[in-house]
Amino acid sequence: MSTRGELFDPIFGSERVRDEVSDRAWVTTMLEVEAALARAAASVGVIDAAHCGAIERSVSELAAPGGIDIVELGRSAVNGGNPVIPLVGLLRERAATHGVPGDQVHRGATSQDILDTALVLLIRRAGAVVLEDLTAAADAAAELARLHRTTPMVARTLGQQALPTTFGLLAATWFVALDTATRRVRSAISSLPVSLGGAAGTLAGLHPEGLRIADALADDLGLARAGLPWHTDRTVVADVATAFGLAAGAMSKPATDIIAMASTELAEVSENDPGGSSAMPHKQNPTSAITARASARRVPALVATVLANTDHEFQRASGAWHAEWETVTTLLRCTGGAACRLSGSLGGLVVHPDAMARNLEITGGLILAERVTAAMSTRTDRAREIVTRAARSGHRLDEDPEVTEHLSAVELEELTDPANYLGHAADLVDRALAARSGGPS
Amino acid sequence: MSTRGELFDPIFGSERVRDEVSDRAWVTTMLEVEAALARAAASVGVIDAAHCGAIERSVSELAAPGGIDIVELGRSAVNGGNPVIPLVGLLRERAATHGVPGDQVHRGATSQDILDTALVLLIRRAGAVVLEDLTAAADAAAELARLHRTTPMVARTLGQQALPTTFGLLAATWFVALDTATRRVRSAISSLPVSLGGAAGTLAGLHPEGLRIADALADDLGLARAGLPWHTDRTVVADVATAFGLAAGAMSKPATDIIAMASTELAEVSENDPGGSSAMPHKQNPTSAITARASARRVPALVATVLANTDHEFQRASGAWHAEWETVTTLLRCTGGAACRLSGSLGGLVVHPDAMARNLEITGGLILAERVTAAMSTRTDRAREIVTRAARSGHRLDEDPEVTEHLSAVELEELTDPANYLGHAADLVDRALAARSGGPS
Amino acid sequence: MSTRGELFDPIFGSERVRDEVSDRAWVTTMLEVEAALARAAASVGVIDAAHCGAIERSVSELAAPGGIDIVELGRSAVNGGNPVIPLVGLLRERAATHGVPGDQVHRGATSQDILDTALVLLIRRAGAVVLEDLTAAADAAAELARLHRTTPMVARTLGQQALPTTFGLLAATWFVALDTATRRVRSAISSLPVSLGGAAGTLAGLHPEGLRIADALADDLGLARAGLPWHTDRTVVADVATAFGLAAGAMSKPATDIIAMASTELAEVSENDPGGSSAMPHKQNPTSAITARASARRVPALVATVLANTDHEFQRASGAWHAEWETVTTLLRCTGGAACRLSGSLGGLVVHPDAMARNLEITGGLILAERVTAAMSTRTDRAREIVTRAARSGHRLDEDPEVTEHLSAVELEELTDPANYLGHAADLVDRALAARSGGPS
Amino acid sequence: MSTRGELFDPIFGSERVRDEVSDRAWVTTMLEVEAALARAAASVGVIDAAHCGAIERSVSELAAPGGIDIVELGRSAVNGGNPVIPLVGLLRERAATHGVPGDQVHRGATSQDILDTALVLLIRRAGAVVLEDLTAAADAAAELARLHRTTPMVARTLGQQALPTTFGLLAATWFVALDTATRRVRSAISSLPVSLGGAAGTLAGLHPEGLRIADALADDLGLARAGLPWHTDRTVVADVATAFGLAAGAMSKPATDIIAMASTELAEVSENDPGGSSAMPHKQNPTSAITARASARRVPALVATVLANTDHEFQRASGAWHAEWETVTTLLRCTGGAACRLSGSLGGLVVHPDAMARNLEITGGLILAERVTAAMSTRTDRAREIVTRAARSGHRLDEDPEVTEHLSAVELEELTDPANYLGHAADLVDRALAARSGGPS
Repeated sequence: MSTRGELFDPIFGSERVRDEVSDRAWVTTMLEVEAALARAAASVGVIDAAHCGAIERSVSELAAPGGIDIVELGRSAVNGGNPVIPLVGLLRERAATHGVPGDQVHRGATSQDILDTALVLLIRRAGAVVLEDLTAAADAAAELARLHRTTPMVARTLGQQALPTTFGLLAATWFVALDTATRRVRSAISSLPVSLGGAAGTLAGLHPEGLRIADALADDLGLARAGLPWHTDRTVVADVATAFGLAAGAMSKPATDIIAMASTELAEVSENDPGGSSAMPHKQNPTSAITARASARRVPALVATVLANTDHEFQRASGAWHAEWETVTTLLRCTGGAACRLSGSLGGLVVHPDAMARNLEITGGLILAERVTAAMSTRTDRAREIVTRAARSGHRLDEDPEVTEHLSAVELEELTDPANYLGHAADLVDRALAARSGGPS
Repeated sequence: MSTRGELFDPIFGSERVRDEVSDRAWVTTMLEVEAALARAAASVGVIDAAHCGAIERSVSELAAPGGIDIVELGRSAVNGGNPVIPLVGLLRERAATHGVPGDQVHRGATSQDILDTALVLLIRRAGAVVLEDLTAAADAAAELARLHRTTPMVARTLGQQALPTTFGLLAATWFVALDTATRRVRSAISSLPVSLGGAAGTLAGLHPEGLRIADALADDLGLARAGLPWHTDRTVVADVATAFGLAAGAMSKPATDIIAMASTELAEVSENDPGGSSAMPHKQNPTSAITARASARRVPALVATVLANTDHEFQRASGAWHAEWETVTTLLRCTGGAACRLSGSLGGLVVHPDAMARNLEITGGLILAERVTAAMSTRTDRAREIVTRAARSGHRLDEDPEVTEHLSAVELEELTDPANYLGHAADLVDRALAARSGGPS
Repeated sequence: MSTRGELFDPIFGSERVRDEVSDRAWVTTMLEVEAALARAAASVGVIDAAHCGAIERSVSELAAPGGIDIVELGRSAVNGGNPVIPLVGLLRERAATHGVPGDQVHRGATSQDILDTALVLLIRRAGAVVLEDLTAAADAAAELARLHRTTPMVARTLGQQALPTTFGLLAATWFVALDTATRRVRSAISSLPVSLGGAAGTLAGLHPEGLRIADALADDLGLARAGLPWHTDRTVVADVATAFGLAAGAMSKPATDIIAMASTELAEVSENDPGGSSAMPHKQNPTSAITARASARRVPALVATVLANTDHEFQRASGAWHAEWETVTTLLRCTGGAACRLSGSLGGLVVHPDAMARNLEITGGLILAERVTAAMSTRTDRAREIVTRAARSGHRLDEDPEVTEHLSAVELEELTDPANYLGHAADLVDRALAARSGGPS
Repeated sequence: MSTRGELFDPIFGSERVRDEVSDRAWVTTMLEVEAALARAAASVGVIDAAHCGAIERSVSELAAPGGIDIVELGRSAVNGGNPVIPLVGLLRERAATHGVPGDQVHRGATSQDILDTALVLLIRRAGAVVLEDLTAAADAAAELARLHRTTPMVARTLGQQALPTTFGLLAATWFVALDTATRRVRSAISSLPVSLGGAAGTLAGLHPEGLRIADALADDLGLARAGLPWHTDRTVVADVATAFGLAAGAMSKPATDIIAMASTELAEVSENDPGGSSAMPHKQNPTSAITARASARRVPALVATVLANTDHEFQRASGAWHAEWETVTTLLRCTGGAACRLSGSLGGLVVHPDAMARNLEITGGLILAERVTAAMSTRTDRAREIVTRAARSGHRLDEDPEVTEHLSAVELEELTDPANYLGHAADLVDRALAARSGGPS
């Protein structure tokens, strides 16, 4: 009755990511950590190998469909303020049926160890999904850059037409930023550390084998070994959050550009599967870019929440820790959703060079005023004055009598042909593509 | 499989609020708006009364359990970027089986009208739940203030013991802030306007009956009439969001204080149903205050997201609108969850005046140094110097020879009795309680 | 050498507000509070009338130009962490030269009383400046709405041309939101309370005259009487901050719209004093709207900072209080700057109805497809199909053979004339203007 | 008259950083970029070597004290919305007096090139200051960890005493987080790229030498070469902002811990130069930690502002760019100020092992209940029950008759001696110190 997500998640493209951070994913991953902890403890003889096997079996049983009633688990988590306490209770009960004494389960660990290690595993998995879509978006933008490296379009600064550029160079700006963000995300999720410190962060319950077990647990789960237990060192989580914040930032620009370029008046691009309107058949809403933008816009504040909750006092924080859980998973859903929808938008972007050409014509050459001025300067000292006056008057340059007095129609046409004033646009695209194929380091 | 909320919502107390903002609540509320729109249009003869009845019947059928497959609805919402488009499709289909032509359904409305009106209805309902818990929290704090108006405790400034105060005055500070927030929330949710503007915000599809229908729709739903369609005037949503932000702010202080006072060292309060630890039987975690604080800490950034998404361009925003949906409902869940957990904490707070008294003793009278200095000043010019030196040395005043040279043990005891230096603490509590019973306006 | 503000403040329009929150404004206002406190204490006989007069004189001397070396004051504030401590020291020194004993100065107050009361006075003064510019912006928008209540322009939803509306209705949306925000700001700054609680918030140092003195201080300064000392009830500051957040939100929409409408392609408005470019004489940057938008975009996060710093523990917060000072004044500068620049933009906005008309023509009638379909439906069952196909093909309706088969050129011209399908646009403008002249309540 | 900063900056420790981001620093750095651009252009023959020298001379003259009236410059920047336009005007005027034609100055560049390149230079310089203080803070924490690797203190989780740990391990958590942040900041500020793209980002005005000039400019200024002009790729700025956000996050924990540990009741540490109170001589406010915390708390929202302003449309953003300027410099001041004050706090931290020992005694051994239970289990099956009941009753373990029935006083003393249950605390400190001396990579 209180389900949420089914209605809006598809719109925002977060379906794949959400499965990696669902209630079920949390529960099975926490169980997975308990099993790995048993193996790590058994590996140094702190718990019995047979008990370890029985714990693994218990974990499998509980993790199987129907193994745990999550609604009930959630309710029994209220008193302690985290779900690990009742989950360990269930695991101990189950393991007891396989003859395992209670103290062999969750050995030497504290709730935060299990929840935090599960969190980084969720981040890694959801992050991998995000990375795929981020990469797909960057690839699509790179392909657009390659295809349109010399396709002229107008450069717009502060909303005003400025000079010619190429659509390829704009698309190159998109993929370069996306690649930067991709590298940051990849780096952040590739070095996530295990959490194992025990109740006080001293590994006292596992002494003298604590460090060996912590490292074995990391190795077992494919996580980085932690220099120290990081119960209250939240740079671990903050680093990941900021990486996703960078990704959302990198996505907001292409989404914003696409929406503007797809406007009725500019009509320079369209999505190949635009949203329609039953009442208004002419509407071609760039829905993918719109919803990508919506998700990206939610991310900065979520990053701020993570950063503002790094002040974990003493050995376990009274609230700042708990505030992370849903914040981080929402951050993953928003970033992943934006990546999914943006890669869809970019991957199916229909480019309209004719419209770009038409828009380049709007000012009648004024966007090349600078070039015309330079050419006219060899013939009159009043070049800047003449061109400026023409520009201010709103005349097309080729219809302004003072301009045509000094420059012939043929000259003017050459001077105001955008294709003749693209500067290094194509070179820059080539440079960015070459750096890319060299590979994001 | 991708369910979320069942695991963590109970911990954070957001179960009641979440039911008011669930997928199902969204769908049934949007249908409810469509039915009300039909009634409003029929009331001025724009649609046929019989059709209106059939639309109401169709809405009832779809809103009934099993009436709509929300998963499927969510998927079919992707293309258009909002769930109203396919929902209207389903409603038209159903109404057609009752003989209603398609154009009688959703008459003159645009998707945003339905979604925004549903949003304000959800806010009103969820907000009522939040208000109940906010009021309960304030009431509990007021009761504590009344009971402990003269219970001495130490005032702490910048972490240091400063002077005596009473626990009642601290609790009064809590309820005064909670009452302020309650008034803001009540005011914000009581004046929420209907949204009806049609595709362009001109009510063109309902002309010349548009204004009458819009006002009738507002009256039907018990919402305020809108001066103008507010598709892109998001002060409506921002005002509510900031009211909830104020509420979270008002809750963060008592939650923070309770956590500190419940610490092992201070032990001045405890929750009557504290969270335990299987491994550490002595632990008495103030789980309600902790989780209230966690939720409250997530709110400021969510408010910022709403405020940052007020820049709705032209007649419908490309992303800023969509970014509101989940943000506002999360804001409601967090604020409501914090209120629920805080009212639980305050309602069951066990106060330990003995511990408060013990803590008042820690400095051996130094917290009344100012008063002692004043008294000693009548006997020696060196009073300030003597007391300051004693304070710096860490001596108890009654063990410092220079102090006892000038003041007798009896005098010192009287001078350093906290109960004798409570200032206007009780007066202030009375004043605040009196203002309250006069009633928050 | 470390001056800041002179370079950028003028760009962002915050010159007037900044003078109200400058270092000097802080210092003189804190001194003003000390003088008022002396008067309040003297009014009930707690300090001597002659001493009060001498304190007022001392305040005047220190507040005069050259009276205090602010650089030196700032440095001497480091140890105690707030500027009141050394300022009171200076005031006591000065008052001593007029024969006033030290304990008559700053009588019964704590640093936070002085700083917080000064803060609300600064907010009130700076807020009055913001209100002037907000009102000017709303007035300018209202005038545009009145002048252009029937000026047709195209309504754009999700970036796509949708239907006709009027520029007046868009401008009405602007002023209605600005008026909402103006009311919130006016309300917030009109009820700011005095702060007087003494070191522990009990007014112990002024007992038994504490409440009378606190109320007298409020009356003297024209501030509201405080129910309780609000040292740690930050709803006072948060309420103001959210009001300014709402104002920034209300300003971001018109700024965004103006920038888009001033684009080379739309050219529907321009600022009367646009920013130029030496190299690109044709550029007409709507600099006022751009810089207003920039300032407005900084506000949401500043509001979040204020809201996140409401968790003032016990009787004085260790950091959360200090975090407010610069945050609130920056908030005032940003909101006030945005209001100043936006009122400039709106007050000098040049509207181009011809460009609006030209843009309405771009789709060749497709924006009225709905109306054409309705008309054609009386002649053919295939009306929707024909119009939809025409729309999808990108044809102008009056050039589509299937369309022209059913509708004559004259009929089509009438049907696709935007002026004939403005719905209630003018009515809504009139309604909003009427509500306004009735006056914002 | 409108000066700001002198009053509050010293309190918040931002004096050194602010000088690096003052108005004067901006102006001289922008001039420095113009000079470097002239050299880069001259290096490939695009401008004349003699003109280059004259431009350098002009820059020196303007950058000298009194060379530019910044107040006047700020005012003349209003129209264009950025200070580069009038600054280039002044430079051209000055260069003209040395015989340089106007088009040799600012050759091929756009305002954003100059301002953005200056911005990264400011970030680099201010960042170096921040790094120094961050490093000093980490060093001080490392020294505390080394000195106190075995100093017992109580571990507190959720505000409750949990188990013993050592102060050294807590301090190790501090430096590990600070080192992580230091590495991120160092990395972010070491790879900042030059900005040179010209009006449209195509380097058209410098074609065909644009790429060579851009790279030469980077080399001249010691900045990274840019793959592409990054006028609208703000991952460059966002990456730096998030690095500073991480640093603030890393600092908030030690600041929070120190404030709590310095409380009157815990008294485990004190600052060697605490803030006093004239009225309350016993107060020892940890002012450095308090003000560090205040600054750190302002950072998350500033990071959010930078992230939310990455949506730079087309080739120059209408507001999102302008919103960065003051936000980034405030971010630098807050982070640097926090680092300065925190390094002061940590560097002068006085540790009180006796108070730590006293606090370990508070529960009378209950914090070692787990260990006692384990030992008692060999003697009775009711061990857990007995200990739990004793714990719940609030008895000291050594005074509980059921406990003493099974364990002798000597045994109990050994079992409840915190020094005997420190787990791997010292090992973990050693591991962290060893990793550190191996050096943060």
